[in-house]
Amino acid sequence: MDIIVLKPDTPEQNIALILAKLESKGLKANVSHGTERTIIGVIGDTSKVTEEEEAAISAMTGVENVVRILKPYKLASRDFRKENSIIDVAGIPIGGKKIQVMAGPCAVENSKNLFDVAQQVKSAGAMFLRGGAYKPRTSPYSFQGLGEEGLRILADARAATGLPVVTEIMDPRDIEAIVKYADVIQIGARNMQNFRLLLEVGSTNKPVLLKRGLSATIKEWLMSAEYIMSRGNQQVMLCERGIRTFETATRNTLDLSAVPVLKQLTHLPIVVDPSHGVGKWDLVAPMAKAAVAAGADALMIEVHVNPAEALSDGEQSLRPDMFAQLMKELKPVAQAVGREI
Amino acid sequence: MDIIVLKPDTPEQNIALILAKLESKGLKANVSHGTERTIIGVIGDTSKVTEEEEAAISAMTGVENVVRILKPYKLASRDFRKENSIIDVAGIPIGGKKIQVMAGPCAVENSKNLFDVAQQVKSAGAMFLRGGAYKPRTSPYSFQGLGEEGLRILADARAATGLPVVTEIMDPRDIEAIVKYADVIQIGARNMQNFRLLLEVGSTNKPVLLKRGLSATIKEWLMSAEYIMSRGNQQVMLCERGIRTFETATRNTLDLSAVPVLKQLTHLPIVVDPSHGVGKWDLVAPMAKAAVAAGADALMIEVHVNPAEALSDGEQSLRPDMFAQLMKELKPVAQAVGREI
Amino acid sequence: MDIIVLKPDTPEQNIALILAKLESKGLKANVSHGTERTIIGVIGDTSKVTEEEEAAISAMTGVENVVRILKPYKLASRDFRKENSIIDVAGIPIGGKKIQVMAGPCAVENSKNLFDVAQQVKSAGAMFLRGGAYKPRTSPYSFQGLGEEGLRILADARAATGLPVVTEIMDPRDIEAIVKYADVIQIGARNMQNFRLLLEVGSTNKPVLLKRGLSATIKEWLMSAEYIMSRGNQQVMLCERGIRTFETATRNTLDLSAVPVLKQLTHLPIVVDPSHGVGKWDLVAPMAKAAVAAGADALMIEVHVNPAEALSDGEQSLRPDMFAQLMKELKPVAQAVGREI
Amino acid sequence: MDIIVLKPDTPEQNIALILAKLESKGLKANVSHGTERTIIGVIGDTSKVTEEEEAAISAMTGVENVVRILKPYKLASRDFRKENSIIDVAGIPIGGKKIQVMAGPCAVENSKNLFDVAQQVKSAGAMFLRGGAYKPRTSPYSFQGLGEEGLRILADARAATGLPVVTEIMDPRDIEAIVKYADVIQIGARNMQNFRLLLEVGSTNKPVLLKRGLSATIKEWLMSAEYIMSRGNQQVMLCERGIRTFETATRNTLDLSAVPVLKQLTHLPIVVDPSHGVGKWDLVAPMAKAAVAAGADALMIEVHVNPAEALSDGEQSLRPDMFAQLMKELKPVAQAVGREI
Repeated sequence: MDIIVLKPDTPEQNIALILAKLESKGLKANVSHGTERTIIGVIGDTSKVTEEEEAAISAMTGVENVVRILKPYKLASRDFRKENSIIDVAGIPIGGKKIQVMAGPCAVENSKNLFDVAQQVKSAGAMFLRGGAYKPRTSPYSFQGLGEEGLRILADARAATGLPVVTEIMDPRDIEAIVKYADVIQIGARNMQNFRLLLEVGSTNKPVLLKRGLSATIKEWLMSAEYIMSRGNQQVMLCERGIRTFETATRNTLDLSAVPVLKQLTHLPIVVDPSHGVGKWDLVAPMAKAAVAAGADALMIEVHVNPAEALSDGEQSLRPDMFAQLMKELKPVAQAVGREI
Repeated sequence: MDIIVLKPDTPEQNIALILAKLESKGLKANVSHGTERTIIGVIGDTSKVTEEEEAAISAMTGVENVVRILKPYKLASRDFRKENSIIDVAGIPIGGKKIQVMAGPCAVENSKNLFDVAQQVKSAGAMFLRGGAYKPRTSPYSFQGLGEEGLRILADARAATGLPVVTEIMDPRDIEAIVKYADVIQIGARNMQNFRLLLEVGSTNKPVLLKRGLSATIKEWLMSAEYIMSRGNQQVMLCERGIRTFETATRNTLDLSAVPVLKQLTHLPIVVDPSHGVGKWDLVAPMAKAAVAAGADALMIEVHVNPAEALSDGEQSLRPDMFAQLMKELKPVAQAVGREI
Repeated sequence: MDIIVLKPDTPEQNIALILAKLESKGLKANVSHGTERTIIGVIGDTSKVTEEEEAAISAMTGVENVVRILKPYKLASRDFRKENSIIDVAGIPIGGKKIQVMAGPCAVENSKNLFDVAQQVKSAGAMFLRGGAYKPRTSPYSFQGLGEEGLRILADARAATGLPVVTEIMDPRDIEAIVKYADVIQIGARNMQNFRLLLEVGSTNKPVLLKRGLSATIKEWLMSAEYIMSRGNQQVMLCERGIRTFETATRNTLDLSAVPVLKQLTHLPIVVDPSHGVGKWDLVAPMAKAAVAAGADALMIEVHVNPAEALSDGEQSLRPDMFAQLMKELKPVAQAVGREI
Repeated sequence: MDIIVLKPDTPEQNIALILAKLESKGLKANVSHGTERTIIGVIGDTSKVTEEEEAAISAMTGVENVVRILKPYKLASRDFRKENSIIDVAGIPIGGKKIQVMAGPCAVENSKNLFDVAQQVKSAGAMFLRGGAYKPRTSPYSFQGLGEEGLRILADARAATGLPVVTEIMDPRDIEAIVKYADVIQIGARNMQNFRLLLEVGSTNKPVLLKRGLSATIKEWLMSAEYIMSRGNQQVMLCERGIRTFETATRNTLDLSAVPVLKQLTHLPIVVDPSHGVGKWDLVAPMAKAAVAAGADALMIEVHVNPAEALSDGEQSLRPDMFAQLMKELKPVAQAVGREI
């Protein structure tokens, strides 16, 4: 149900036009004349009222404001599905009691480095290998990733270690290659509202890790999940990775309150990426613990064999030994909130 | 030249490692021991130091902070080209004395509406017709545009009125169709960092209107222009359309100070879109005037024959009569700042 | 009228408790059972429902959300007073056809500099002299202003030039001194929600210039005006001076769309301070023109005889000759929007 | 050491003027002519260069940018004091191994409610009683607190329970009353840059809890701590309580990364207030756990005997039984990170 607030002294004929418009959409209306404002309560399934219809009503003479009561997403909503969704990736459940850790370098640079890191993060307890073959970089002069060669190296590392692979897609034209090599397709923050890409991954049967956009509200983020799900792919996990605020002490502001908020609004599993969230390696460990304490279902952490030689985001990467230490320290935190890691 | 600030009490051996790293990149260094901090001034062409190399240096032991002095963009920079760039679209110059106005509906809905609007905005003095055939919509359940059919309608309206056409691309796979029909290719705010799309339009010879991302800094925006220009296409215009802030009284916060800031930093023409910037039709006129007073080279304004029936963003569209009135009111403002409209 | 949205499946007994609570406040309720949500429309004068009562209702079992329809401010509202308020300061009207300009240094430093500036801004057409005797500074080690001595210098400059004086109050204990010397009392951005200070100036009969807080919404700003007005002082003008956003190219982001938004919401005059809004002297002129074009009733501009020697905010001050030039350039812009300057 | 970046092609005579200016401040300079920019490294104790001197230098002809390398705060800095400060309040240490919990209602309403809550939070393990006698409220029509009567009730509750009392000051004129009754003086978010109030509490010998402003950077927050410390009062604790961002799903965005960042920058104890940070009672528990995991030294939590009857902020208050449950759940989290609670 939506509410339409009218400007003071709106003539009856304008109210009649609004009511006629609602009726033409198959909706009923309930007009209440208050002492200071008249409001129209819209009755019926307003979840079918599209954005553009709402904007059109807002543009009618006499309308001060349209207040949306119902959530604009459905499939992603906790109302639609009460119990938590658990996504199975190669036999590993995401969203259950065990908190899964995805680790690896920002970008795949070469076989040797990736195999090294993969072995070490596996020994430390990571269950997934992350690494980018296609890299979104602010500058056209920066390393853009190895492309399909990077995907092959990832697949080789999976063959060697058994760790399923999470990797990012940037272009709908790469969908076949990604589907061939990846276990989880990542949509990066800058592409959260690249709607064509969302539809593309929504048409596959691969689990999708959907990162939150830098300035995306939680509602918009869930709408992007809805894009994917509306195409038939229900295996979506949401990854908080920091939002843009005025604070510059950290690269982004990791919004951990999004975790319990999402737990109320949606049934989808929640991942937290503290590495991108803070952008500095020495802040990753406390924020990883905080993410677990806040209720995250999985963590995504950057690990590089030699951060000072990394071709991408070395500043925020942990060395393998630091990652192993963090994994040890995360165990009691997970237990403290009734989880395992 | 970049500055590397060291943590207090960094041992000489770590400083030596940092210096060796700089030398390996062909850079020289100038170490200054201050009373509270030691800093390293990097000498040489640090504009070739990539983001990843900078991040890697930041990750070295002893480094507290790396301060970037030079701008990371080159082709888009006012340092590179001192005089204003003027972009010629079908004989109409953008970036010269005359302020050009681009007007039309948010989305192309059908021939009749578009022709109507095109005729009316032309009579009122608009020099370009805008309209979306592919529409980025927050919800998968909203109208997504007519696609190539919409492009054809736009081309027909151009044939009828002589107005060149500005329209948005959302998917690199649509590039051929867009190039065939459009005079100016628009990159929307949500795709400002869709780097594959930027490279794609950079490979064409069509002028590009690059909208600012919702939370993009001016520097990031210029880096996205640099992406396009690095591929050879120098015909880029920058369009301010509001940024995301905490304020909810307007849909976005139109950052008009970006106009004079950009005039200092870049030679590219600046467009302002007050319709998306504020999101409410009754705020468009004052903000259009303010944009002209601030120094904008062009305006982009939404006009719809019947906003209350619009399939997209009716709330912010002007009716043709209001647009004609605004055009009249803009004339003296343009003259007051030494321009024409 | 407020709307209370209930969680799905809220038991009738909880709804009954909510209705009883509303009745105890003298309010009636209208329950609508929708297909997805039940909502309660509250009827009666909910403008008397205080924040705490609203929060308490939000805390009741079953309540998902409380939507406020009416504006929480009254005296400041355009609903309360339809025509524009014009504030008379020593015979000079603020809020009428003529746009008034307040100019002067950030801080009063000494007699000579202030007299110099006062004479020059007067010659250039300024109608008010601004200058701080008490300065809010981020650092305790910075110049904090001359205090009462500064007020005396301001009064002397007024005697010499006839320009009424605008100066800032920081501490309720200074109210007597400020009232004695100032013509307009300024509340700075950092004190916009210093509620005790608001009540103090509300108890005087001096006009008040209320600057917008760095992260204040327009609604909160109007609530602060309401604080002053609720004490009987109706002479409040609102001064936009930039809000805090993620953008760092300017010191703040001057939100010019606040001008037309405020013109709709309130009858109070609107001042714009482009100097603080952008923080760099070479951006002041275009933003001053834009402010006039957007509909501002007055401008506040920093002018210093020698910005490179200023004890405060030299970076954003104009030299007197630049100010005189700007005043000339503002005239046609004001005329273009039907005003004078 | 500061860096001054010059505009391209700055004439030597302007450089000479800048150097003369630096010399007049007792500073030396090191000019480096790079290929694209000339920069001046300033040598000497630039921590004594005040804001206004920096702004004045920024205003000199030829200066593009001034980059500050040193931190502008000293007493609050980890450089100044390497080990953690532990603040002793009536024998209870804040900043040591034990995480202290401050609990109680937003506002003191009456003796009965306060005593009830005080007893219950004490039984549950809280070590401090919080409650406001003076309340900063957005609306002048809301409950403003009981004033000195509220302070007396707090003191009585302390006498009855032994819990030291934390309460907010809003007006420098209340300092005597606050000092008389309170154990810890709270500076609220809206007053973080009420510099007169900071100086006032800095002149007392009472511990101060300094809340972060809604849009304050961590640097500005530490500068406000410096204000207090510069007056001689070193007993400052910093309380993160959420910052303002574009997200509206929570009342504010609790910036937990501020905790590890502050641990690097300062020796002062860190408190987290999840109640104000999120603004909804059902999000308080997960964020309290996350705060502990992130390294907070203390928590401040709102508890009310009957949130639905609260005169202030009922929406975010826990009932005493929920608080007791939370205290139980926090124990293992504290242990997991090597702390006690």
